[in-house]
Amino acid sequence: MTEPQHLADLWPGDRPEAARRLLLAAVEAFATRGYHATTTRDIATAAGMSPAALYIHYTSKAALLAEISRNGHAGTLALVEAAVAESSDPREQMRRLVAAFTAWHARGHTVGRIVNYELRALPAEDFEVVAELRRRIEDTVMRVIEAGVAAGLFDVPPATTRTTARAVTSLGIDVARWYNERSTETPEQLGDRYATLVLRMVGAG
Amino acid sequence: MTEPQHLADLWPGDRPEAARRLLLAAVEAFATRGYHATTTRDIATAAGMSPAALYIHYTSKAALLAEISRNGHAGTLALVEAAVAESSDPREQMRRLVAAFTAWHARGHTVGRIVNYELRALPAEDFEVVAELRRRIEDTVMRVIEAGVAAGLFDVPPATTRTTARAVTSLGIDVARWYNERSTETPEQLGDRYATLVLRMVGAG
Repeated sequence: MTEPQHLADLWPGDRPEAARRLLLAAVEAFATRGYHATTTRDIATAAGMSPAALYIHYTSKAALLAEISRNGHAGTLALVEAAVAESSDPREQMRRLVAAFTAWHARGHTVGRIVNYELRALPAEDFEVVAELRRRIEDTVMRVIEAGVAAGLFDVPPATTRTTARAVTSLGIDVARWYNERSTETPEQLGDRYATLVLRMVGAG
Repeated sequence: MTEPQHLADLWPGDRPEAARRLLLAAVEAFATRGYHATTTRDIATAAGMSPAALYIHYTSKAALLAEISRNGHAGTLALVEAAVAESSDPREQMRRLVAAFTAWHARGHTVGRIVNYELRALPAEDFEVVAELRRRIEDTVMRVIEAGVAAGLFDVPPATTRTTARAVTSLGIDVARWYNERSTETPEQLGDRYATLVLRMVGAG
């Protein structure tokens, strides 16, 4: 198993090598046969370890899922916040935000599916952490919309601001479902096109 | 188990009562614990039947999934084609198509998740049938976009027609992921708002 760059970015280097191998094996297994049908033994075997060795690093399958999900969400939030910090023009902020968010879900579609579709399998405490990260991503999008409206650059009725923000994140998230290595657009091309579509959605086309 | 109207619509009445109960139990089980972790025994038990009685109607768990998926996709295609047939104005066609497609995925979010997320679990033959239905849905959206562009009503560069059509269906499909009974918008309200967003996306805002 080689570790793609977007996974290396998710899992900072200060983690033991064995823990990284387990996270990578868990992503593969969850993506291939689904979270519920995967056993800790499957994951340990794929990582070339014994189940006992797995438990040194993770107490359960759910702990692996939680680590994957928390890191995936934290990484996406950081991406979104960085995009907004790069400009003070709401149009440029939205363009960069959508381009980065979309490209992330295309490139990281395997992890993207897991973190978005297995939320209900998370232990309550981890679910709360992840739910808060998701709220912050959506709130960031809302604030860009509100800034654009306040500046007279966007045209979004206040009553539909949340629906519009959710549509923006939803469009990016669903990329993880359908994107694959045979897709004709690169993650960056798709990000640019989606940015154009979203700018139109907010009335700044 | 009572059968919601959108499920009754999916499974026409000429099916034996036991088969309907099995389909309903399978939808519940797949949605709750995932397709891979569900056994035919789980489904039979939930339907108040023995595994042997299940096999009279369905030869396998995959046969149940295939029936749910084929009917879900065929029903959605019928909805989309009906929306387009109701008007000759591409703007009105797109508005009705998006409103109906979105509302379907909000109301039928449980079935929607199964038919969209478990595609890879389908037997090859059923996958081909479903893939063809999905192509026809996306092609219908593409034809509406092309008609709108030809009439000077939409502004979509030809090179991005397919990406735009995919974004339209993607936005509706992802509603099944996040929509639930606590959502503040009704399926119809959401359908109307998404129709407005999509008309902007195609430059007819």
